[in-house]
Amino acid sequence: MQALIEKAEVLVEALPYIQRFANKTIVIKYGGHAMTEEELRASFARDVVLLKAIGVRPVVVHGGGPQIEAMLERLGKTSTFVDGLRVTDDATMEVVEMVLGGRVNREIVELVNRAGGRAIGLTGNDASMIKVRRRLIEGRDLGRVGEVTAVDPDALRAVADAGFVPVVAPLGVDPAGLTYNVNADEAAGAIAKALSAEKLMLLTDVEGVKDASGRLVRRLGRAEARKLVDEGTIRGGMIPKVQCCLDAVSGGVERAHVVDGRILHAILLEIFTDVGVGTLITR
Amino acid sequence: MQALIEKAEVLVEALPYIQRFANKTIVIKYGGHAMTEEELRASFARDVVLLKAIGVRPVVVHGGGPQIEAMLERLGKTSTFVDGLRVTDDATMEVVEMVLGGRVNREIVELVNRAGGRAIGLTGNDASMIKVRRRLIEGRDLGRVGEVTAVDPDALRAVADAGFVPVVAPLGVDPAGLTYNVNADEAAGAIAKALSAEKLMLLTDVEGVKDASGRLVRRLGRAEARKLVDEGTIRGGMIPKVQCCLDAVSGGVERAHVVDGRILHAILLEIFTDVGVGTLITR
Amino acid sequence: MQALIEKAEVLVEALPYIQRFANKTIVIKYGGHAMTEEELRASFARDVVLLKAIGVRPVVVHGGGPQIEAMLERLGKTSTFVDGLRVTDDATMEVVEMVLGGRVNREIVELVNRAGGRAIGLTGNDASMIKVRRRLIEGRDLGRVGEVTAVDPDALRAVADAGFVPVVAPLGVDPAGLTYNVNADEAAGAIAKALSAEKLMLLTDVEGVKDASGRLVRRLGRAEARKLVDEGTIRGGMIPKVQCCLDAVSGGVERAHVVDGRILHAILLEIFTDVGVGTLITR
Amino acid sequence: MQALIEKAEVLVEALPYIQRFANKTIVIKYGGHAMTEEELRASFARDVVLLKAIGVRPVVVHGGGPQIEAMLERLGKTSTFVDGLRVTDDATMEVVEMVLGGRVNREIVELVNRAGGRAIGLTGNDASMIKVRRRLIEGRDLGRVGEVTAVDPDALRAVADAGFVPVVAPLGVDPAGLTYNVNADEAAGAIAKALSAEKLMLLTDVEGVKDASGRLVRRLGRAEARKLVDEGTIRGGMIPKVQCCLDAVSGGVERAHVVDGRILHAILLEIFTDVGVGTLITR
Amino acid sequence: MQALIEKAEVLVEALPYIQRFANKTIVIKYGGHAMTEEELRASFARDVVLLKAIGVRPVVVHGGGPQIEAMLERLGKTSTFVDGLRVTDDATMEVVEMVLGGRVNREIVELVNRAGGRAIGLTGNDASMIKVRRRLIEGRDLGRVGEVTAVDPDALRAVADAGFVPVVAPLGVDPAGLTYNVNADEAAGAIAKALSAEKLMLLTDVEGVKDASGRLVRRLGRAEARKLVDEGTIRGGMIPKVQCCLDAVSGGVERAHVVDGRILHAILLEIFTDVGVGTLITR
Amino acid sequence: MQALIEKAEVLVEALPYIQRFANKTIVIKYGGHAMTEEELRASFARDVVLLKAIGVRPVVVHGGGPQIEAMLERLGKTSTFVDGLRVTDDATMEVVEMVLGGRVNREIVELVNRAGGRAIGLTGNDASMIKVRRRLIEGRDLGRVGEVTAVDPDALRAVADAGFVPVVAPLGVDPAGLTYNVNADEAAGAIAKALSAEKLMLLTDVEGVKDASGRLVRRLGRAEARKLVDEGTIRGGMIPKVQCCLDAVSGGVERAHVVDGRILHAILLEIFTDVGVGTLITR
Repeated sequence: MQALIEKAEVLVEALPYIQRFANKTIVIKYGGHAMTEEELRASFARDVVLLKAIGVRPVVVHGGGPQIEAMLERLGKTSTFVDGLRVTDDATMEVVEMVLGGRVNREIVELVNRAGGRAIGLTGNDASMIKVRRRLIEGRDLGRVGEVTAVDPDALRAVADAGFVPVVAPLGVDPAGLTYNVNADEAAGAIAKALSAEKLMLLTDVEGVKDASGRLVRRLGRAEARKLVDEGTIRGGMIPKVQCCLDAVSGGVERAHVVDGRILHAILLEIFTDVGVGTLITR
Repeated sequence: MQALIEKAEVLVEALPYIQRFANKTIVIKYGGHAMTEEELRASFARDVVLLKAIGVRPVVVHGGGPQIEAMLERLGKTSTFVDGLRVTDDATMEVVEMVLGGRVNREIVELVNRAGGRAIGLTGNDASMIKVRRRLIEGRDLGRVGEVTAVDPDALRAVADAGFVPVVAPLGVDPAGLTYNVNADEAAGAIAKALSAEKLMLLTDVEGVKDASGRLVRRLGRAEARKLVDEGTIRGGMIPKVQCCLDAVSGGVERAHVVDGRILHAILLEIFTDVGVGTLITR
Repeated sequence: MQALIEKAEVLVEALPYIQRFANKTIVIKYGGHAMTEEELRASFARDVVLLKAIGVRPVVVHGGGPQIEAMLERLGKTSTFVDGLRVTDDATMEVVEMVLGGRVNREIVELVNRAGGRAIGLTGNDASMIKVRRRLIEGRDLGRVGEVTAVDPDALRAVADAGFVPVVAPLGVDPAGLTYNVNADEAAGAIAKALSAEKLMLLTDVEGVKDASGRLVRRLGRAEARKLVDEGTIRGGMIPKVQCCLDAVSGGVERAHVVDGRILHAILLEIFTDVGVGTLITR
Repeated sequence: MQALIEKAEVLVEALPYIQRFANKTIVIKYGGHAMTEEELRASFARDVVLLKAIGVRPVVVHGGGPQIEAMLERLGKTSTFVDGLRVTDDATMEVVEMVLGGRVNREIVELVNRAGGRAIGLTGNDASMIKVRRRLIEGRDLGRVGEVTAVDPDALRAVADAGFVPVVAPLGVDPAGLTYNVNADEAAGAIAKALSAEKLMLLTDVEGVKDASGRLVRRLGRAEARKLVDEGTIRGGMIPKVQCCLDAVSGGVERAHVVDGRILHAILLEIFTDVGVGTLITR
Repeated sequence: MQALIEKAEVLVEALPYIQRFANKTIVIKYGGHAMTEEELRASFARDVVLLKAIGVRPVVVHGGGPQIEAMLERLGKTSTFVDGLRVTDDATMEVVEMVLGGRVNREIVELVNRAGGRAIGLTGNDASMIKVRRRLIEGRDLGRVGEVTAVDPDALRAVADAGFVPVVAPLGVDPAGLTYNVNADEAAGAIAKALSAEKLMLLTDVEGVKDASGRLVRRLGRAEARKLVDEGTIRGGMIPKVQCCLDAVSGGVERAHVVDGRILHAILLEIFTDVGVGTLITR
Repeated sequence: MQALIEKAEVLVEALPYIQRFANKTIVIKYGGHAMTEEELRASFARDVVLLKAIGVRPVVVHGGGPQIEAMLERLGKTSTFVDGLRVTDDATMEVVEMVLGGRVNREIVELVNRAGGRAIGLTGNDASMIKVRRRLIEGRDLGRVGEVTAVDPDALRAVADAGFVPVVAPLGVDPAGLTYNVNADEAAGAIAKALSAEKLMLLTDVEGVKDASGRLVRRLGRAEARKLVDEGTIRGGMIPKVQCCLDAVSGGVERAHVVDGRILHAILLEIFTDVGVGTLITR
C-alpha cells in the first residue's frame, strides 16, 4: 500500500504542471534514437497520449532521413548532399514523399494509436498546410528542397480540436502546387509559431548544448549562442537546431528546448519537472 | 534522473484510468479522519484538485456531526438522538445550518482552493436543490430531519460545467421552503443518482466491510450484504452506508464504494489502481 | 374589471424601464431594516425575483454586523472597534464566517427561494472570488479585516448565466488563502465594478443624502459631496457609502444610489420610476 | 409614494404569471374593434410589446375584411359571398393581397414599432409558410380561398428567436405557388398548432360565448359546445371561432380563448389574471 | 453525352467564382425590364435562388414607380414630381406603401419561391430597419419622401442566416415612427453598406455608363465620373445611380455595378464571368 | 454574350440537383483510368472541388493495385494471389502501406489541392478508423489482408466539417493494432454506410453492368443481380462491385452506382443529370 501511496504522491506533484499546460499546444520534433529504439519509441508514444489525455495539445513533427536513405539504396538510387541538405531531384522526391508520408508517418501514427491514443497523420501538403519556396544554398539549386514561407494552421487545429493527435511529415507545397522536402526542425518551428505554441521541443541524440568545457548549458540566450557558435563550441547539426529555437521564440512560441531524446520519458520530464532534460533557448 | 524517470512511469501508468474517467462525475462523501487530520485533509484536497485538472468531475459532499456537537455545547444546548439521528428542534436547526453551511463547508472550500482548485460551496437549499420531506423514525418525529425525495442537479451542473468543484453541505428544503438537516451519506447518494455519477465514494474510518472472520470484503452484492447484516457481521453505522451504496447502484450510479479515508490519497488510489482501498458495493 | 385594467396599465407603464434594464446587472447591497422587518424582507425578495423573471440580472450582497454581534455575545466573546471597523482576531473571524456564510447568507437564499426565485449563496472565498489584502487603519492592524484588491467575476457570471440569483456574503481571501472580513458596501461596489453593472444600490435606513437644511439631495456629484463632507453635513457611516458609490461610478458602473430601504419595494421603485427613492451619486 | 408602492405591488402580483409564460408562444388573432379604435389599438400594441419584453413570444395574426371591402369599393369592384366567405377571383385576390400585406399588416407593424417593439410583417406566402388547397364550400368553388393544409414554422421561429414580433397576414400558397386568401382565425389556429403554442387568443367584439340565458360561459368543452350549437345558442360567426379553438387544443395548443377585444389590455388581462376576459375552450 | 459533358465543364468553370463569393452578401437593386418581362423575371428569380443554393447571400431591393403610378391612376389620384422625385402627400403615401409592400414585394417573393427559393418580404419599416429623415430638395418639402440616415441590419441578418432570401421594399421610418417613401437605389446602397456587402448591383435598362463616343465604360472611378457628368455625358437618371455606387464603395462595399438588366441571367453573368455586363464603379 | 447566357442556363439547370444534395455525403471510390489518364484525373479533381464548393460533402476512397505492383517489382519482390486477392506477407504489407499512404494518397491530395480544393489524406489506420479482422479465403490465410468489421466515422466527420475533402487509403487495423490491406471497394462501401451517405459511386473502366445481350443495365435490384451472376453475365471483378453496392444500400446508403470513370466529369454527370453514367444498384 505504501508503494501505491507514493505513486499517488507522484501524480499530485504533477498537478501544478498539469494546470499550467492545460489547453496549451506543445510541438515535438520527433527523431533520432527516440524513433529507432523500441523502448524509447514506446515511452515517447505513451508520453504523447498522456499529454493529450490530461488536456495538453501535443503536435508531433518527424523527420526520416535514415529511412529515406535506406529506401533510395534499396531502389539503387544515390543522392548528393550540399551543406547537409540532400539534393532532391524529381525521382528522389517521389521516394522522399513515399517514405515520409507512407512509412515513417504511418509508423508513428500506429505507435501512438497502439499506446491508446487517436493519432491522425498529416503531411505538409495536406490542405496545402506548409507553404514553401525553393531553397537555394549559396546560390545553388538543391532541387525539391523547400524553405517554409508560411503555415496555415486550420487543418492542425481541426484535427486537434476534434480530440486527435496530429503527426506531421515535413513536406511543403510551392505556389504552383509542387511538393518539396522540408527540414523537420524547420517545419516543427514554423508549426509552433503558426499555432502560438507554449513549447517547442526538438528531440536529439545529445544531452543538449554544451559549453567549451563540455558542461550542459541549461539556458541559452541569443548573444551567448552567437558567442558559442563563433568560438566553434556549437557546431555542425546543432547550429540549425539552436537557430530554429531562436526563431521560434522570436516568433511567439513561449519556450523552445533542445531535449535529450535518449532519456526515457524525456517529454514528460521536460514538462513535468523544473529541471528539464536539455537546453532551454531564450530570446 | 532515474528517480525522475520512475516518476514519469507512474504518470504513464495512470493513463488508462485517466482515459476511463474523462468527463465522468465522481461524488465523494467526505468525513471522519480524512476531515480532521491535517495530512489527510491536505491529501484529500490535492486529490480532488488533481481529478478536476485531468478532466474528471468531482463533487464533494460533507457531514459535520462533531462540529455541530461542539458548537451546540459551546452555546449550552444539548441534543437527544433517535437511532443515531439527532432530534433537531428549530433552535438546533439554526446551529446545524450555521455550522454546516458557514463553518464546515467553508473550511473545505478554502482547503480545496488553497490546494490550487476553484471550489464553490453549496448547500442543499441553494436553488432548492435537495428536496426533502420530514423523516419519521418508527413513527417518531425527529424535528427538522429530512428524508431526500429528489435532487435538482441544475445548480451542480452549472457550477461543475463552469470549471468549479462543488462542495455540498447536506441540507434540504421541504415543499414549504423550510430547511432540514439531511444525513450526509444519503445526500451524497441522492446527488450521485441525480448526476448519473460514475462513482460514489463514502470515505469512512474503517478499512471497509469485513466478513465474519474480520477479513476485508473487496466486493459485496445485495444478497451477500443482507446475509452479513442478518448475521450481525455488518452492524451499526455501516448498515446505512451499505444501504446507501446499494440504493445508488440501483439508481444508475456505475459503482459505489465504502473507502478507507484514513489512507493517504485514498481517492486517487480508488480511482487509479485496480485494487482500490475498500469495498465495492454492487447490485 | 376597471381595477384590473388599471393594474394592466401599471404593467405597461413599466415597459420602458423593462426594456432599458434587459440583461443588465444590478448589484444590491442588502442590509438594515430591509433585512430585519418581515414585510420589508418579503418585499425585497419579491422585487429581486421579479427583476430576474423579466430579464434583469440582480446580484445581492449582504452584511451582517448585528447578527455577528449577537452570536459573539452568545458565545461570550467581546470585540473592539477602530474607526467603526471591528478588530477581528482568528477566533472572531471564525464566528464572522460562520454567521455571514451559514446564517445570514442562508436566510437570504431561503427568503428569495420562498418568493419563487432560485438563489445560490456564495461567499467571497468561493472560487477565491474576492481577493483582499490586510487593511491597516492609520498604521494599526485590525486583524482579519480585508481591503478588496480585485474581484474575479467568473463564479458570479456562471451562476447568473445559469438562471440563478447570486447572494454574496462579504468575505475575501488574501494571497496566502486566509479568509478575511470585508465591509459589505465595499464588497458590493467592487462586485459592481467587476461586473460592469448598470446600477449599484446601497439599501440604507435613511432617506438618502441630505443637505445642510435637511432636504433630500436627489443627485450628488464628487465636488458637491466633498463640500458636504467638509461642512460636516455628510458624516459618520454615510461618508464611506458616498465614497463607495463614487468609486463605483468612476470604475465603470453606470449609476450608483443610496436608497431608502425602509420603503416597501424600494428596489422596484428605484428601477421602475423616474423619481427613485434616494440619492443618485454621479462622477 | 404610496401610489408608487401600490404600483410596484401590481408588478409583483404579475410575477407568477411571468414565470409561467416565460419563453412560451402566444398566438393572438387580432381584429374587430381592437384594430379600429385608437385607444384599443394602442393598448393592444403595448400589451404585445410588454409580453415580448418580459420573455413571452407573441405572434400576431390579423384579418382585414373591412379594409379589403373599402378598397374594392374605391376601385369600383363588387364581391359576392358564400357562407360568409368572399368569392375571390384573380382581380379580387390582387386587391386582397395588396390590402392585407401592404396596408393592414404594415399598419400593425408600425403600431407595434411605435409602441417600442420590433415587429416584422410576414404573410403566409413568405417562405411558402402557410400551405393551402382550394376550399370548396358544398362543392362550390369560391376562387382563391384557401384551406390551410400545413404551416412551416421555420420563418416564424427565425423571426421570433432573433427578438422580433412576427405579424402575419392570412395568405397561403397552393402546391403550384398560387396565393390564396385564408380565414384569419383558421390561420391563427394553424400557426398556434405548428408552434405548439401555449395559448391561442381570438380577439372578438363580444364578451365571449354565452349560454341560453345570456350569461358568459367561462369554460367550454367539446360536448357542451356541440349542445350549444345544436340548440342554436352559439350561432353565426361564433361557430367557426369555437371550432377553431377546439381544433387548436386538439392539435397540441395548451389553451384557446375567445377574448373580448373591446376591453382595454384584454391580452394582459387574459394572461396575467386568473379570471380572464372571455371563454376558455377546452378539449 | 458530349453535350452533357460540356454542361459539366460549364459548372466547373464557375468554380473559382463560387469559391470567391462563398458566404458573401450581394445586394441587388431589382427593377426595370427585369421586373416586367416574363422571361427576364424568371431568369432573375432562378439566378437569385442559385446564388443562395451555392452559399452566396443575396438581398433583393426593389422599386415600384410604374406600379404606384398605375394604382394612383386607378384610384383617380394624380401626383407632382420635383427633380424626378414624387411629391408624396399622406394619401399618396398610403398607396405607395400598399403597392410596394403588398403588391410589388409580394410578387417578387412569390416569384422567388416558385423558382425553388425561400424568400421573405420585408419593408424598410419592419423592425424600423431603414431610418430616414424628411428629404428637402432645394429647400422644398416633397412630403413623405425620406432620405436614409441609417440601416439596422439585424432583421436582414436574421432572415439571411436562417436560410431565407430577404426581398426589401424601399420604405423608411423617421424618429417619430412615420413611414416614408425612399428611392430604391438609395435604399439598396445603404443596405449594402450596412451589411458590408461584397457587391452592389443596380439592374437598369441600359447597357451601362457610356463615354462621349457612346462606348460602354467597363470601369469608372470618381474623377472620371465627375468629368463625364460635367461634360454632360452622364445625365438624367444615371447620375444618381453612379453617385449611389460611389457612395457604396466609399462606405465599405467591395464593388458596385450598374448592370444591364435586359440581358438574361445578368446577375449570374456579372458574378460568374470576368467580363461582366455593365459598368464597375470604383472609388 | 449569347454563349455566356447559355452557360448561365446550364448553371441554373443544376439548381434542383444542388438543392437536393446540399449537405449530403457522397463517397467516391476512385480508380482505374480515371486515376491514370491526365485529362480524366483533372476532370475528377475539379468535380470533387466543385461538389465541396456548392455544399456537398465528398469523400474519396482510392485503391492502388498497379502502383503497388510496380513498386514491388522495382524492389524485386513478387506476390502470389488467391481469388484475385494478394497474399500479403509483412514485407509486402510495408510496401503496400508505403505506396497507398505515401504515394497514391499523396498524389490524389495534391491533385485535388491543385484544382483549388483543400484535401486531407487519411488512411484507415488514422485514428484507428477502419477496423478489420484477418480475412480467410476458403480457410486459407492471405496474410495481412483485412475484412472490414467497423468504421469509426469521427475522423472523417471532423475533417469534412472543417471544410476539407477527406481522401482515404484502404488500410485497416485489427484489435492488436496491426495494419492490414483492405479492398478499396469494400472500404468505400463501409465508409458510405458509417456516414449514412446519400450516394456511393464506384468509378470503373466499364460502362456499367450489362445484360446478356450486352446492353447497359440502368438499374439493377438484388434478385436480378443474382440471376445475372448465376447466368454468368456478371462475372469477374464486377461481382464484388455489385455485391458491395448491394451491401451499401442494405446498410442505409440511399443510392449506390457503378459508374463509367472513363467519361469526363463522370461524377458531376451522375449527380447533376437524370440519366447518369452507369448502373444504379438498388435493394
